Amino acid sequence: MAEPVEEQGLVKEITPLSVDFDRWYTDVVRKAELADWTFVQGMMVIRPYGFALWEHIQRAFDDMIKASGHENMAFPLLIPQEFLLKEAEHIEGFAPEVAWVTKVGKGMKELEQPLAIRPTSETIIGPIMRKYIQSHRDLPKLTNQWCNVMRWEMRTRLFLRSREFYWQEGHTFHSTAQEAEDEVHLILGYYRDLAQDWLAVPVDVGLKSETEKFAGAVYTTSIEGMMRDGQALQMGTSHYFGQNFSRAYDIGFANRENQRELCYTTSWGVSTRLIGALIMAHGDDSGLILPPRVAPIQVVAVPILRSDEPSREAVRGCLRTLEAQLRGAVRFKVDWREDVRPGEKYAEWEVKGVPLRLEVGPRDVEAGQVVLVDRLRREKRPVPIEGLAERLRAELAQFHLDLYHRAQTFKAEHTADLIDLAAVVDHYRTDGGFVRALWCGRGECEAQVKLETGGVTTRNFPENEVIEGTCVVCGREAKHRVTFAKAY
Amino acid sequence: MAEPVEEQGLVKEITPLSVDFDRWYTDVVRKAELADWTFVQGMMVIRPYGFALWEHIQRAFDDMIKASGHENMAFPLLIPQEFLLKEAEHIEGFAPEVAWVTKVGKGMKELEQPLAIRPTSETIIGPIMRKYIQSHRDLPKLTNQWCNVMRWEMRTRLFLRSREFYWQEGHTFHSTAQEAEDEVHLILGYYRDLAQDWLAVPVDVGLKSETEKFAGAVYTTSIEGMMRDGQALQMGTSHYFGQNFSRAYDIGFANRENQRELCYTTSWGVSTRLIGALIMAHGDDSGLILPPRVAPIQVVAVPILRSDEPSREAVRGCLRTLEAQLRGAVRFKVDWREDVRPGEKYAEWEVKGVPLRLEVGPRDVEAGQVVLVDRLRREKRPVPIEGLAERLRAELAQFHLDLYHRAQTFKAEHTADLIDLAAVVDHYRTDGGFVRALWCGRGECEAQVKLETGGVTTRNFPENEVIEGTCVVCGREAKHRVTFAKAY
Repeated sequence: MAEPVEEQGLVKEITPLSVDFDRWYTDVVRKAELADWTFVQGMMVIRPYGFALWEHIQRAFDDMIKASGHENMAFPLLIPQEFLLKEAEHIEGFAPEVAWVTKVGKGMKELEQPLAIRPTSETIIGPIMRKYIQSHRDLPKLTNQWCNVMRWEMRTRLFLRSREFYWQEGHTFHSTAQEAEDEVHLILGYYRDLAQDWLAVPVDVGLKSETEKFAGAVYTTSIEGMMRDGQALQMGTSHYFGQNFSRAYDIGFANRENQRELCYTTSWGVSTRLIGALIMAHGDDSGLILPPRVAPIQVVAVPILRSDEPSREAVRGCLRTLEAQLRGAVRFKVDWREDVRPGEKYAEWEVKGVPLRLEVGPRDVEAGQVVLVDRLRREKRPVPIEGLAERLRAELAQFHLDLYHRAQTFKAEHTADLIDLAAVVDHYRTDGGFVRALWCGRGECEAQVKLETGGVTTRNFPENEVIEGTCVVCGREAKHRVTFAKAY
Repeated sequence: MAEPVEEQGLVKEITPLSVDFDRWYTDVVRKAELADWTFVQGMMVIRPYGFALWEHIQRAFDDMIKASGHENMAFPLLIPQEFLLKEAEHIEGFAPEVAWVTKVGKGMKELEQPLAIRPTSETIIGPIMRKYIQSHRDLPKLTNQWCNVMRWEMRTRLFLRSREFYWQEGHTFHSTAQEAEDEVHLILGYYRDLAQDWLAVPVDVGLKSETEKFAGAVYTTSIEGMMRDGQALQMGTSHYFGQNFSRAYDIGFANRENQRELCYTTSWGVSTRLIGALIMAHGDDSGLILPPRVAPIQVVAVPILRSDEPSREAVRGCLRTLEAQLRGAVRFKVDWREDVRPGEKYAEWEVKGVPLRLEVGPRDVEAGQVVLVDRLRREKRPVPIEGLAERLRAELAQFHLDLYHRAQTFKAEHTADLIDLAAVVDHYRTDGGFVRALWCGRGECEAQVKLETGGVTTRNFPENEVIEGTCVVCGREAKHRVTFAKAY
């Protein structure tokens, strides 16, 4: 549940990660000034540092989809009840979480029909796009929108689960099943790249089980990351709908033979949840550790000023020169505050996870160097001012690799291959992390694992893998090598 | 009212601007594929071409405000009723247009308190930001959000007035009145620059009257453009609140003497209405004319292919080379479609207002040239392929100036300086456009002009102008030289 607003901004110390992961997470989000709960229950405010992070993530993904011909649009926030109700499985999945607009204006006049605030937009985008699709020549339609959606969750967590959140939702319309399925996988690949190459979070890429798929989909693919408490986080999903939605909303086209066919459609989304992912995949007891490619500030410089004015001016002059030199090369900030001691500044920028810090004192300036400290290893290294821009770019690239490698190692160390149910149950009595096991693909076996482990579910499995062996639960022939984990 | 969805996409011909301006506007918006109404009454879908235009406008303004230290955030969509009701004038202004969420979940359970979908966010941003403001050291807070808002309008018009629209709303908090007023004017200057330097729309910059100001403001400043039917469009507003909102929401800080004071606050916004502005300020009977700096496509090339394959390949090869050469220099698109004739392509890109068109045929390629046609004058000019990138950039810069100049000339030609009420009334019997006149500043005189002219209102007036003369209505001493106009 939402915390009372009075607690805002009062985090004095971050609870150690090993002591209480949930508390640690909330402390970090708030102390790093990423987001807070508001007095509107379950709804957050994203603060400037958190929003800048989101803007960098948005830019990265937006560039990817635009390069492959996807186009941004804006669709209505509100969905008439009758439209939301048309696809039976879909509404079954979302109805419990819908917020309804029922009244308007000064006298709060009742609407003829309640309007849902979109929990996702399949049921409004389909009916709108059908008007723009007459012939196979109008296809494919590759649309996307960046927007807010609302799901009336009862258990909330900043960035991971809130009543309102921000995301992109792609919705595409195709003339063949093959093309639509290719689209699903194209985007899945983008999501993998976004997670790994931008957020430095290694992910499992694969198919969701029938139980775990999106309400209304033929199948759902996902990327799943491992958080530092060993739990899984579903970081993005790409769905294949076949003709399910186009049948419900009559989205058709005239094919080459001039006969009417229904479209094949997809949808896919990533959200501000990705911010939660990078916090929980990389953070430590001192706070955030940000992947450089999306860090709002990549390099922060802290001046160390002595009492004599000439040496102070030398340091300031050096930093002003660096500000000019580094512009456009790295996202650089000098912490000029005069009423805060350098040590406090170090701590603050460590909480905020800035990848690289430069400490610049009078002796450094004299020696033509600065002291470089990286957030990951915290080693202090003198580096020459000459050629600093290039050096910092190389350091940031290396930082990304190191961060990715660290997460990958952590994931490998917390993944077990197990072959029978007893071992799985036993494993989760003492351990967390991922378990990889063979599985027959049946819901009964999933359910049994979930029951006996107190909540471990299937996350996803690689597509088209040749499997030999038997199901970890029932001993029948296995179809998939699936990842089990507790999940957010 | 919203048009029925069945009409979508069926605009065959654009109604001439001189025959029916309203019809012309709607035809252009739809035939240029900018936006449409949807089956959700009063709510629009912004199509890819329209949204790309908005993205360029967003980028331009976002860069301006970030360069001066403003930060983007995200605040909740929903506002509890009790908060919306706290500032009396404000709620008086907005209550008639509020959409209320009253029910949630599967059983449509009644909420304890209705939640308003934000019509604007002063009443939620203030109460949230107060938590982050303790001392004068926390000020100023310069926040902005890009978001959707909802106002339940009864008379709607695409981009100009719809129940949901997209905008930025800036909200800033200051320790002194002077600083807050400076902020209001800083942003007003950005709005002027956005309108003039990016959209090529000359604007009147000034103060709104008491009657026309924002509900809850001490004063409102605005930019007002003239559309091609002579009517005014309010294109952006920047408000000074003094302590009105900080009093209502108790937003205070400890000053340098450690005494508690209330903040001085501002808000300011521009919306997707700006798209309406550039359509109506520049368009002609053939459709849109887009200002180059925000045009999604600045230069379109149409291949002219003859029947013999070697000459076809020469043209294609030339265009492929241009695609590579112009990348990064101008937003360039080759219309490669094979099933559409060049003449149809020309008409289509004219409707869409692309500033420059290149026609490329085999003889041009042989002669090392292309034919350049600009959307404004439609002159055909051969230009050498050598140095084309630079030439096109220069042409686009000139196109912007020409477009601006044309709008400025039109505005000057449709602005009359008048000195008595009879003349004003007489003027609006036969003419439209702007009337500049001296005014005493009293609401009675504004009301009388409005009554006798059938709806002409004051738009704004320059601040701090020394005025000598008497009011156009009552003959009392004049305080302002005000612009009168019919307005959207």
